[in-house]
Amino acid sequence: MEVIDYRRGVLRILDQRLLPEREIYLECRTIEEVVSAIKSLAVRGAPLISISAAYGVCIGLFQYKTLEKLDYILFSLRNSRPTAYNIFTILDRIENRIRTLNTNDYEKALELAEAEAIAIHNEDRNLCNKIAKNGQKVIPNNANVVTICNTGMLATGGIGTALGVIYEGFQDGKIKHVFVLETRPLLQGARLTAYELAKNKIPVTLITDNMLSFLFSRSKIDLAIVGADRIVKNGDTANKIGTLNLAIVCKYFGVPFYVAAPYTTIDLSLEDGSQIPIEERDPNEVRFFRNQLIAPPEVEVWNPAFDITPASLITGIITDRGIFKPNEIFALKIQ
Amino acid sequence: MEVIDYRRGVLRILDQRLLPEREIYLECRTIEEVVSAIKSLAVRGAPLISISAAYGVCIGLFQYKTLEKLDYILFSLRNSRPTAYNIFTILDRIENRIRTLNTNDYEKALELAEAEAIAIHNEDRNLCNKIAKNGQKVIPNNANVVTICNTGMLATGGIGTALGVIYEGFQDGKIKHVFVLETRPLLQGARLTAYELAKNKIPVTLITDNMLSFLFSRSKIDLAIVGADRIVKNGDTANKIGTLNLAIVCKYFGVPFYVAAPYTTIDLSLEDGSQIPIEERDPNEVRFFRNQLIAPPEVEVWNPAFDITPASLITGIITDRGIFKPNEIFALKIQ
Repeated sequence: MEVIDYRRGVLRILDQRLLPEREIYLECRTIEEVVSAIKSLAVRGAPLISISAAYGVCIGLFQYKTLEKLDYILFSLRNSRPTAYNIFTILDRIENRIRTLNTNDYEKALELAEAEAIAIHNEDRNLCNKIAKNGQKVIPNNANVVTICNTGMLATGGIGTALGVIYEGFQDGKIKHVFVLETRPLLQGARLTAYELAKNKIPVTLITDNMLSFLFSRSKIDLAIVGADRIVKNGDTANKIGTLNLAIVCKYFGVPFYVAAPYTTIDLSLEDGSQIPIEERDPNEVRFFRNQLIAPPEVEVWNPAFDITPASLITGIITDRGIFKPNEIFALKIQ
Repeated sequence: MEVIDYRRGVLRILDQRLLPEREIYLECRTIEEVVSAIKSLAVRGAPLISISAAYGVCIGLFQYKTLEKLDYILFSLRNSRPTAYNIFTILDRIENRIRTLNTNDYEKALELAEAEAIAIHNEDRNLCNKIAKNGQKVIPNNANVVTICNTGMLATGGIGTALGVIYEGFQDGKIKHVFVLETRPLLQGARLTAYELAKNKIPVTLITDNMLSFLFSRSKIDLAIVGADRIVKNGDTANKIGTLNLAIVCKYFGVPFYVAAPYTTIDLSLEDGSQIPIEERDPNEVRFFRNQLIAPPEVEVWNPAFDITPASLITGIITDRGIFKPNEIFALKIQ
């Protein structure tokens, strides 16, 4: 199953909103279509969003055939979703390359952007592999692991971040069982992670988000591993809503809680998590289950897509460059 | 809206599975239909289940017109759902009354059972009122309250247990806002509590279960109040799955966590929570959202309907007989 595929003029994106029932691809031929695919979560996962954005620059340049639209293209992509940081890291990188070229020839810029986007896509595969390898140090034998949302092949250009560590740990014979939180409201855990793991023959049990604590009280859980959308200077981490719940429950039960993410996730411009913008999405994502109303239509809903886990609850951050304590993460980019 | 209504030979039950979209009543004319309504959650909530069971004895006696079926009737009801204790308290009470009558005349027994069931129904209304009054002591001014599942007019014979305390606190001008956890998988918080509160003009915000911790980190939450399905000798409490999550999050944030329940919930025959039988329900309750598949159909699911909150996480237990520390609850029935 191919998650994303670029050819000049067309970005094919697997529409993740319809999984696991249907495998349908969106063909994005305009920057507006790419932005819409990101905003609507047809494509999601911090690393995969950044790859989509890199290709999005190419789509936009080919669409408008002038560099005068570069600012608009970058602006549209940077304003697609506010919380995950990788997209900003990657767009800064592509923008710098294009600006350095110092040309008015859109074709030259497009060729450069394409080469850069492909490099970014390939690099992400390698970042995943490095994270997966580095993560093995923290996995005990016969481990039962808990994870949230989707951080695997559907969220990255490779085997995943947190889920990459889990795939590798299973192959090494260390991981015995994975418990997946369904991850309301959009059910990325149920629809995507349970699906990926089952497809890869990894023993998995799905639970609803509110079963978490009871699971810990009834089963031997050895560790939790989650992804990240943004990690700031003091180690505070934004990730899918529900991650803070998981971290607090881990602390209560004395279970290690790890974050797995590539260096592109780290934002040293923010001092602590309170400064991270948190996306609040349409209340109807909670009120409706696809077309089915599950709450009074007039009821007020709060629908933050992410939460912030304080550094104090994080045992370690597994990156492509090694494992860091949250209070050491600031040093990673300086190295 | 009438939740339950008994006339000789017919028990009308509001089918809570269809709320808030449709208000449809089931007419149960046999003990088998009553048991099925309880098992399928057409009627739910520990106090309301016990009222349904009391009327269920009457339905069964009228159906079979012989006391020889009394054991079968009681056995069927006692085996309908394993976790909530009120049904056992109430069935023991009715059985004792009938046995004491020492008759073979089913009509006499039916009349007695009917009088007893109606008394139980009326008493439950009073129990709710007493719990609501007693609970006011723990509610500060301008309180923001969190609750889970449904413990209100749809769960009892009166205004509710935890939700009764909230109704009373709102009327007294002390409660400002109520946050309701949607309560997966069957969404009693979204479908029933948000609906009840909105109907009664109480300011309410609905969140998914995994937003809980982030809510506490972003809003001033003053207390959590939940119902109970069974409270045992040491104060450990079984309640809707997700209650333990809420209690752990309250502890982490230093927020008081209260249980509200009538004396019928208390089971002194069990020493601690580990002995409480926990109902595990059909995995398809998690895999499907009504008719919509939301996870791979073959994925393993764990679906406990309740969890156990240890006494150590409970600030106080609000009962019809006053507020108790969990480690004092054993004295309540001896008084």
